[in-house]
Amino acid sequence: MAEPSKLEILRHSTSHVMAEAVKALFPDVLLAIGPSIDTGFYYDFDMPHTLTEEDLPKIEEKMREIIKKDEKFERQEISRAEAIKQMREKGEIYKVELLNEIKDDKVTFYKNGNLIDLCRGPHIGSTKEIKAFKLLSIAGAYWRGSEKNKMLQRIYGTAFESKKELEDHLKMLEEAEKRDHRKLGKQLDLFNIFQEEAGAGLVYYYPKGAVLREQIETFLKAEHRKRGYETVIIPHIAKADLWHTSGHTGYYRENMYSLKIDEQEYIVKPMNCPGHILIFKRKMRSYRELPIRYFELGTVYRHEKSGVLHGLLRVRGFTQDDAHIFCAHEQLKDEIVKVIDFVYDMMKVFGFEYEINLSTRPEKFVGTKENWEHATDALISVLKSKGETYKIDEGAGVFYGPKIDIKLKDAIGRLWQGPTIQVDFQLPERFDLKYTGEDGKEHRPAMIHRVVLGSMERFIGALIEHYAGAFPVWLSPVQVAILPIADRHNEYAMKVKEELLNNDIRAEIDDRREKIGHKIREAEMQKTPYMMIVGDKEADSNTVSLRARHKGDVGAVKLEEFLSSIKEEIASKKR
Amino acid sequence: MAEPSKLEILRHSTSHVMAEAVKALFPDVLLAIGPSIDTGFYYDFDMPHTLTEEDLPKIEEKMREIIKKDEKFERQEISRAEAIKQMREKGEIYKVELLNEIKDDKVTFYKNGNLIDLCRGPHIGSTKEIKAFKLLSIAGAYWRGSEKNKMLQRIYGTAFESKKELEDHLKMLEEAEKRDHRKLGKQLDLFNIFQEEAGAGLVYYYPKGAVLREQIETFLKAEHRKRGYETVIIPHIAKADLWHTSGHTGYYRENMYSLKIDEQEYIVKPMNCPGHILIFKRKMRSYRELPIRYFELGTVYRHEKSGVLHGLLRVRGFTQDDAHIFCAHEQLKDEIVKVIDFVYDMMKVFGFEYEINLSTRPEKFVGTKENWEHATDALISVLKSKGETYKIDEGAGVFYGPKIDIKLKDAIGRLWQGPTIQVDFQLPERFDLKYTGEDGKEHRPAMIHRVVLGSMERFIGALIEHYAGAFPVWLSPVQVAILPIADRHNEYAMKVKEELLNNDIRAEIDDRREKIGHKIREAEMQKTPYMMIVGDKEADSNTVSLRARHKGDVGAVKLEEFLSSIKEEIASKKR
Repeated sequence: MAEPSKLEILRHSTSHVMAEAVKALFPDVLLAIGPSIDTGFYYDFDMPHTLTEEDLPKIEEKMREIIKKDEKFERQEISRAEAIKQMREKGEIYKVELLNEIKDDKVTFYKNGNLIDLCRGPHIGSTKEIKAFKLLSIAGAYWRGSEKNKMLQRIYGTAFESKKELEDHLKMLEEAEKRDHRKLGKQLDLFNIFQEEAGAGLVYYYPKGAVLREQIETFLKAEHRKRGYETVIIPHIAKADLWHTSGHTGYYRENMYSLKIDEQEYIVKPMNCPGHILIFKRKMRSYRELPIRYFELGTVYRHEKSGVLHGLLRVRGFTQDDAHIFCAHEQLKDEIVKVIDFVYDMMKVFGFEYEINLSTRPEKFVGTKENWEHATDALISVLKSKGETYKIDEGAGVFYGPKIDIKLKDAIGRLWQGPTIQVDFQLPERFDLKYTGEDGKEHRPAMIHRVVLGSMERFIGALIEHYAGAFPVWLSPVQVAILPIADRHNEYAMKVKEELLNNDIRAEIDDRREKIGHKIREAEMQKTPYMMIVGDKEADSNTVSLRARHKGDVGAVKLEEFLSSIKEEIASKKR
Repeated sequence: MAEPSKLEILRHSTSHVMAEAVKALFPDVLLAIGPSIDTGFYYDFDMPHTLTEEDLPKIEEKMREIIKKDEKFERQEISRAEAIKQMREKGEIYKVELLNEIKDDKVTFYKNGNLIDLCRGPHIGSTKEIKAFKLLSIAGAYWRGSEKNKMLQRIYGTAFESKKELEDHLKMLEEAEKRDHRKLGKQLDLFNIFQEEAGAGLVYYYPKGAVLREQIETFLKAEHRKRGYETVIIPHIAKADLWHTSGHTGYYRENMYSLKIDEQEYIVKPMNCPGHILIFKRKMRSYRELPIRYFELGTVYRHEKSGVLHGLLRVRGFTQDDAHIFCAHEQLKDEIVKVIDFVYDMMKVFGFEYEINLSTRPEKFVGTKENWEHATDALISVLKSKGETYKIDEGAGVFYGPKIDIKLKDAIGRLWQGPTIQVDFQLPERFDLKYTGEDGKEHRPAMIHRVVLGSMERFIGALIEHYAGAFPVWLSPVQVAILPIADRHNEYAMKVKEELLNNDIRAEIDDRREKIGHKIREAEMQKTPYMMIVGDKEADSNTVSLRARHKGDVGAVKLEEFLSSIKEEIASKKR
């Protein structure tokens, strides 16, 4: 485990202060766990009192009192047996359960004021170091994340080193709430998850969402073709044998959906690699053919606990822009460079900044340590040669190889899981992949598993929030809303629409009997990039009154002029 | 059941003659069943002797003797109990099993020569009426098609009313063998089914097959858009509840793949309708919105017995060009006309002739007979108004509605299952679909289920055989093969290739160190529409030596000329 950062220590300590405050207000509370997380901290409590939003200011008030007292964080080391005894006496059943699983003889507790908590630490020196914090929300959370356990009450909060940083973060959260892709997904009629009727974590794309996705997919396919990828298509179910060979059933079983055909076990594919490997392996390969790059918009299904599912971001079915590159070991670095360049090109198009993580060998892994090092070195040397700064995420690699994770930074500074690039020497071994080298001998190729946008679901979720639903014209489900002023203008509106459709511009008419102001407001709510208002004047002069999304009223324009400008805007993928 | 045609009776009688001949040659044979089929007849036998191709002429010889004797076909009616007794004495266990399932008290046997066979009839008068027959092949076939039963020996044969028709048919079969999509699929490197490794009936598209499929899909999507269809995208798994509501679990259970998530049953979708219905139902609908047409290239999974799987034609996973049209009852005929016109447009593009079947209410059905008649009438009235001739297939409708089946007639006269159009009043009822009419009241919409090409797998299988693998240029995975004469021409070949790729022409270079004649022959085997031979002369004069698939050598051409002509050929989808 990596050392916690200064900010992580601060947040973790603030969670202890929160626990102390909660215990002061509700003495019969039982403590579960209270870690720091990416965006702050939380603590899980078990108590008879049901927390509501109104409790948060009271808890904050109590926390401020504690901070004012400048309580010291004191470390205590005691024997595990003694700790269990003490906790049992206090009735802290969750701590007892945790203690029972610790292997060391000695355990540490941290004391601040009246709170003594089982904790590895480290902590800040005293509570006065907490300068800026805020409690954010209450949620239910199963003990240890399992539906089989009791539902506890979780309080989320955050803390920063300065008031200014906290304020910025709170402003960002407010902005993020407006951009919530689940809310916008409904408002813009893009997608839905019919949890009750059809199942949790499974996304249904409405026509407008499907247009958005198809634009991205068409673009992606062309970009892959340009870069020498070949498309393949594989089925969504396959014999479990494939995943026995790959090793996935050993490491990933609980995330896989299984069914029976002709008395044999089949799997709803959770990844595309074994299928692409079968296609690679269909004939003997020569070094002249390498690298071979197989691309597929491959839909996969992976079990996630229902508690962690979240809109488009954590789902059970998703489509990856997945590719597998089979290459000679000496081609590996070149191929990784090409993938990274591909990623950069895509991020520019969508306007994302990025951060790079390198994930190394996890506890459960296949293959030799030597191979792991070789693969990790390849990734590091490419990142260095590109002059990239990156964080190392120790032990976060997949069981078959290390990976580069690129996180997309959106318009309001949040990070989204995006592209990953994995180097793999294990599956070529397990599937016995070969090619004939220039020397006439058999060699083992290397594999790169990579996604450029990641999953279409998560990427579209991120895009909705990144653009706050106001998609660039090339991605907008409806590019032009035609708004006739009265029924008698519907005919001309129809003519305008046909002209737009003939030019592959996505247009819709709002021919309801509503006031024009109402129609404009609705098109604005839909974040449609262009509106064309058509009335007597426009019909007579063969023009349209144009309104642009960010500019407002543009005035009367000829259709041809508009067409050439919007086509240019679409072709250049202008943001 | 429809009355058998004259040809069907002839073929069925020929199968009795074959059985008589087999019994004469191999007296310890047990008889299973021997029906007429679309292309002839078969009979399944159980006997110690293992049949080989060499037995066929002997059996034919014996059949000719029987025919010469002009044996009468005599009908006998006896009680079922007596029949069971007689068959049991003879040890004809298969006939006994069949007899045990018959509900009538009387059963009929037909006698010709030494053969007495349980048979509903009718038959020809005497064996001399058989003028032209041929035994074709031997195959294994499980008793009653189930792997749990014994494997029997099946002999396929065919018969026609005249020698000429038989000869034409045999020629067609010879031609069909050359066009076999499984053979060509391998030769052209299009697809594979990894039965052993990954499962039977599940298709893997290699890069070239994926290009072919993508061309068709891109075209289809545009054609649907043009015709007012909206694309939606749904997941491949959903709660079984959806199919309880639709009624599929009651009528279709054994064809559905089931899995468990969170202790609930889920289904790998065997059809897309319930998902599209959820999307329709997401909000209250007005008559102004209708018709709503949802389109999806939807991949579905349906269980088929392993014995009936056949290349791309009978599979367990396939992608339909599926749409569901939700409309007012008064819009039904108009919508059916539009679908049929759509179908005709598509068939023209691919060069198929067609035959139309109308399938009516099956034994197992949902809904009222009245609704069934209403729906069937709608289909008939459209067919009549279009002046189409059609066959009625009594009882072959789906459980929820009647349908039009259009069979594609390929280049050598064979029929392929293609488009289907189903009218459905049941699912709108079961899912309680509604819209507000112009009268302000709630109404129930009708649904049309339709596919235009059918399944991509079956359609591609049919296309391969229809074109004998020589796809029109717009569909060809490789449109131009560039063949450098020697290594020193590779650079110029590369330049030509880049120019082609920049113009979206799919080109490949064959830069192996092989003689040019060898390269040409291989490109011919690949049925590549154009070859460009490049040597010193071509490099110097900035031309290519062009060979066209059906024309042979075209001579030296400038690249720009070629580009403009091939682009025109692609855009017009010339066959």
